[in-house]
Amino acid sequence: MATSEDSLRRSLAEKQSSIESQGNTVRALKAANAEKATVDEAIEKLNALKLDKSVMEKQLQAAVNGNGPDGSINKEAFRQAVVNTLERRLFYIPSFKIYRGVAGLYDYGPPGCAVKSNVLSFWRQHFVLEENMLEVDCPCVTPEAVLKASGHVDKFTDLMVKDEKTGTCYRADHLLKDFCNEKIQKDLSISAEKAAELKHVLAMLDDLSAEELGAKIKEYGITAPDTKNPLSDPYPFNLMFQTSIGPSGLSPGYMRPETAQGIFVNFKDLYYYNGNKLPFAAAQIGQAFRNEISPRQGLLRVQNSKSLPNLQRKSSSGEAVSKGIVNNETLGYFIGRVYLFLTRLDCWDAEIESSYGWIECVGIADRSAYDLHAHTEKSGVPLVAHEKFSEPKEVEKLVIAPVKKELGLAFKGNQKKVVEALEAMNEKEALDMKASLETKGVVEFYVCTLGENVTIKKNMVSISKEKKKEHQRTFTPSVIEPSFGIGRIIYCLYEHSFYMRPSKAGDEQLNVFRFPPLVAPIKCTVFPLVQNQQYENVAKIISKSLTAAGISHKIDITGTSIGKRYARTDELGVPFAITVDSISSVTIRERDSKDQIRVDVEEAAPVMKSVTDGHRTWVDVWASFPHHSSGSAED
Amino acid sequence: MATSEDSLRRSLAEKQSSIESQGNTVRALKAANAEKATVDEAIEKLNALKLDKSVMEKQLQAAVNGNGPDGSINKEAFRQAVVNTLERRLFYIPSFKIYRGVAGLYDYGPPGCAVKSNVLSFWRQHFVLEENMLEVDCPCVTPEAVLKASGHVDKFTDLMVKDEKTGTCYRADHLLKDFCNEKIQKDLSISAEKAAELKHVLAMLDDLSAEELGAKIKEYGITAPDTKNPLSDPYPFNLMFQTSIGPSGLSPGYMRPETAQGIFVNFKDLYYYNGNKLPFAAAQIGQAFRNEISPRQGLLRVQNSKSLPNLQRKSSSGEAVSKGIVNNETLGYFIGRVYLFLTRLDCWDAEIESSYGWIECVGIADRSAYDLHAHTEKSGVPLVAHEKFSEPKEVEKLVIAPVKKELGLAFKGNQKKVVEALEAMNEKEALDMKASLETKGVVEFYVCTLGENVTIKKNMVSISKEKKKEHQRTFTPSVIEPSFGIGRIIYCLYEHSFYMRPSKAGDEQLNVFRFPPLVAPIKCTVFPLVQNQQYENVAKIISKSLTAAGISHKIDITGTSIGKRYARTDELGVPFAITVDSISSVTIRERDSKDQIRVDVEEAAPVMKSVTDGHRTWVDVWASFPHHSSGSAED
Repeated sequence: MATSEDSLRRSLAEKQSSIESQGNTVRALKAANAEKATVDEAIEKLNALKLDKSVMEKQLQAAVNGNGPDGSINKEAFRQAVVNTLERRLFYIPSFKIYRGVAGLYDYGPPGCAVKSNVLSFWRQHFVLEENMLEVDCPCVTPEAVLKASGHVDKFTDLMVKDEKTGTCYRADHLLKDFCNEKIQKDLSISAEKAAELKHVLAMLDDLSAEELGAKIKEYGITAPDTKNPLSDPYPFNLMFQTSIGPSGLSPGYMRPETAQGIFVNFKDLYYYNGNKLPFAAAQIGQAFRNEISPRQGLLRVQNSKSLPNLQRKSSSGEAVSKGIVNNETLGYFIGRVYLFLTRLDCWDAEIESSYGWIECVGIADRSAYDLHAHTEKSGVPLVAHEKFSEPKEVEKLVIAPVKKELGLAFKGNQKKVVEALEAMNEKEALDMKASLETKGVVEFYVCTLGENVTIKKNMVSISKEKKKEHQRTFTPSVIEPSFGIGRIIYCLYEHSFYMRPSKAGDEQLNVFRFPPLVAPIKCTVFPLVQNQQYENVAKIISKSLTAAGISHKIDITGTSIGKRYARTDELGVPFAITVDSISSVTIRERDSKDQIRVDVEEAAPVMKSVTDGHRTWVDVWASFPHHSSGSAED
Repeated sequence: MATSEDSLRRSLAEKQSSIESQGNTVRALKAANAEKATVDEAIEKLNALKLDKSVMEKQLQAAVNGNGPDGSINKEAFRQAVVNTLERRLFYIPSFKIYRGVAGLYDYGPPGCAVKSNVLSFWRQHFVLEENMLEVDCPCVTPEAVLKASGHVDKFTDLMVKDEKTGTCYRADHLLKDFCNEKIQKDLSISAEKAAELKHVLAMLDDLSAEELGAKIKEYGITAPDTKNPLSDPYPFNLMFQTSIGPSGLSPGYMRPETAQGIFVNFKDLYYYNGNKLPFAAAQIGQAFRNEISPRQGLLRVQNSKSLPNLQRKSSSGEAVSKGIVNNETLGYFIGRVYLFLTRLDCWDAEIESSYGWIECVGIADRSAYDLHAHTEKSGVPLVAHEKFSEPKEVEKLVIAPVKKELGLAFKGNQKKVVEALEAMNEKEALDMKASLETKGVVEFYVCTLGENVTIKKNMVSISKEKKKEHQRTFTPSVIEPSFGIGRIIYCLYEHSFYMRPSKAGDEQLNVFRFPPLVAPIKCTVFPLVQNQQYENVAKIISKSLTAAGISHKIDITGTSIGKRYARTDELGVPFAITVDSISSVTIRERDSKDQIRVDVEEAAPVMKSVTDGHRTWVDVWASFPHHSSGSAED
């Protein structure tokens, strides 16, 4: 697509110069009072060139919108169709909308809740139960110390710019991104080189520093979108919701920005629960909170911060297996499990292609020992694992033994700081000091807590290497952290499942979500074909057996035409419809093929059970029961 | 119990005065140099009285601790046993404990998460699916306007007192409660009347105003628990966690204090989703946040704020059925459904008796039209329902028609305010004005927006009653709101399920949670009787079929004695254990009876499936398979 766009831009530029040159020719011929036939021929050629150009412009526009050259529906229109259906059928509701809402916050309405609950149940089944993961559930309100240690208090920021007159804030990268996209998509006159430059900026967007972002904003003359006022330099804004724990106002806290920290701080207990064995996996399902301003990706963007399940595998880095390999094995293992999870949901990759482009829905991060180290250091509680050796090992250990009496005599009140500085030397520093003391008897030693050099004499410290037997080693395990944006996965599932098909009469487009039964908000509907007490009784009997089998379903006894009732539930993604058209047998219709089979009343619930819990496919069922032709019922 | 306590206090007081009088007798005899035998006899009588008193004191102590007169385990000790087991087996973990924690915040550890997930799934099945409720899922961060309308910004408070020297805060009612309980339980010398007074204060605690609380604290001389410093007067403290939405710092928000408001603000959409029909029920499962300080009820207290599912039935109050009756019907209906829910979990009531006394776990509130009215008023969006009349009704309506031309001539710039004031008159005011205008032709009329009287003449306004046909009525529906403290329910479930039984050797007490299979964190375990490759293979085959059947289970292939393995899993509340003791058949042991049956290997998973999903009871199964005697294996 990019190549085609690129060559179209080049052809368009050539066409434009042909038009200009042909225009000159026409003007020259007119000025020279050339024969009418000659002038007309030149004008005709000019018009043909202009026509070519307008066709090319349409092609280029289609290419940048991601459409095929046949002009098939573009991304923007497709997304709008999906979003309209999702909002009309209350999969999503703009939050607090009677109070004019909060930009980018959405509630899940009834079918949205059902889909979310199905996805989370399957997540728990696929990861927690089948993998014996250790699940935890921690509070959302988190004391500052925890998020200080994890680095979020200092570094969990977005770069913002302010409208210099009104004070309105914008995300610096969003403004730059909007500018580049707008230029590429709407300004068909820019050169292929300029387009390439702008695309490069888009690709680098996440890696730009505050200074680089500021420089680009200046270079492109980007101003505040609403007022066209100049913008401030980019500055960092912390994305955590701050609050205060308890009534004193003196205990700052935050709404957790991710679910992983709750797992890290519980490492010791989880390690114990796992019988002090590595590796193990822990998981947390829950919300993470990010104070993102003016989220611009509508449904996609916000759902990102609604639920961030999180699972972790703490992998041992034994001696026999190099750390790199273990991590790669763990990574590879998770990539496989994640792939299985997503394909069962009808998604295809951890980076999912949607109308917004490629979206990261599952990130698998190698956090190595970073977080466990950080919490060990700040809390003072060692978050470490032990590995017993099959037989004791002899190891050489550096022993630094300050002679406190001598140091006390020499440094008085400063003794403690000197002792600490001596003990904190690494192996090289200590061996250098040992060598100096042995050759010169004294050495100058910088004590940073004192901010000055002191003179250490030979009798003040003994440094030696000693052999010791060790029975185990103590180490900080490495962590692989896959994290799932369940909201994003659900949104992408909606886009992937959505399609439109003409009604039977061909006079309108009907919306369908082809949800797999696993995630469908309602598994089947029960429709008496016509309003009739006998049929309604049969529908109620079937409904009872569906409830007993745990199959979510809906009865619709309105007199609406059966075609309209099918269309209504297709739009909710209901995979099967049971239509009661006799008192002994009923039809079952599959949503996408619109094929129907006929089954006895008492077989309806068991058949539904087997096709919704995945024990049978529709193809199996289709092969086992008589087919039913809908005649004029459908649509 | 109270009566026995009361009579014990009276007897104790009598005994004390007998002791004093007998003491006087002894002293008098000694002073009178009475015969040694006489003195000895009097002393013996005194000692007997003292012995009686000490027995009575023990009885009274047992009575106030809630023990039987036989001295059976008291509440405090029972709770400690439950809590120790829950914390040791990681049902709960004190949150952020490596950072010295946050008083009263607990994480759910692995088995706790499984129980919570099972309870919530059942909740969703029992209420949302079986009752066709409309589920919503709203953000936790809520803009101020919503909670201002609901009254939470102004009234969601606890009364606090401050240590006047250190500034440490305490809940005023907690200090008073502690004082009363301590006095009743520890001070055996107080009179029955004083005990009754203190109990009355405890009963009234929730209804005391700030002034009354302050007065009692002064009267009893209650001081700060840690420092004994004097305390401030009680003042209100808002329990919501405040934060700020977006980067400007100008949009205050709160973490939602309850889940109900998210349903109220979505009323219009949910009513539409339900086909504009009443009644309907909506539900939300999610967390509510309360900034409660120093929660003192340990596990019970805090879990209260961890999850507050919420469901509502909006009931029509039609003309034919009086509002009261409809509400009572709805109430009665929910009480029934809630009762079924709790009994399935092994709890017995919406007020559940626990070691903390009677705890409200489910509240069913009649909120009438309060919240919908409040949000209508503050948002300006009418949250109302319509009821179509079967045939149009004729109603008499008051029509006030100000004559703007005349009013404009008379009042110039003030015309608009006068018009508004005229239109805002209620029926009585308007009819009074009509009468005055008809008799006198003019009337003095107070316009509050002007702050003065104006003179209204007959030609300035026409007031009449007109008959109109109405096709529907518009009204604000009433709401019944059951809300569930899932955390409290789970904690009470733990207490109700916990018991201790002696080990077979009788040398120790073993802990058991008798969870019903529905909520048990793990449904069964698979134990090869001895470490042996063949048995392990059988265990793996069974494990595979359990996974396929969706039954959560654990394999334990350690060589630990089978009795110890049973005891370990009894403590986790695992209802069934499959022990592999041959390659063709296995035993299944039920946790509470310790009875065992023998089944073929391939029958193990189907039997497990039927007893865990409730299709068969253990009694059924026990009747259908050969019994197995455990011999020396158990314990």
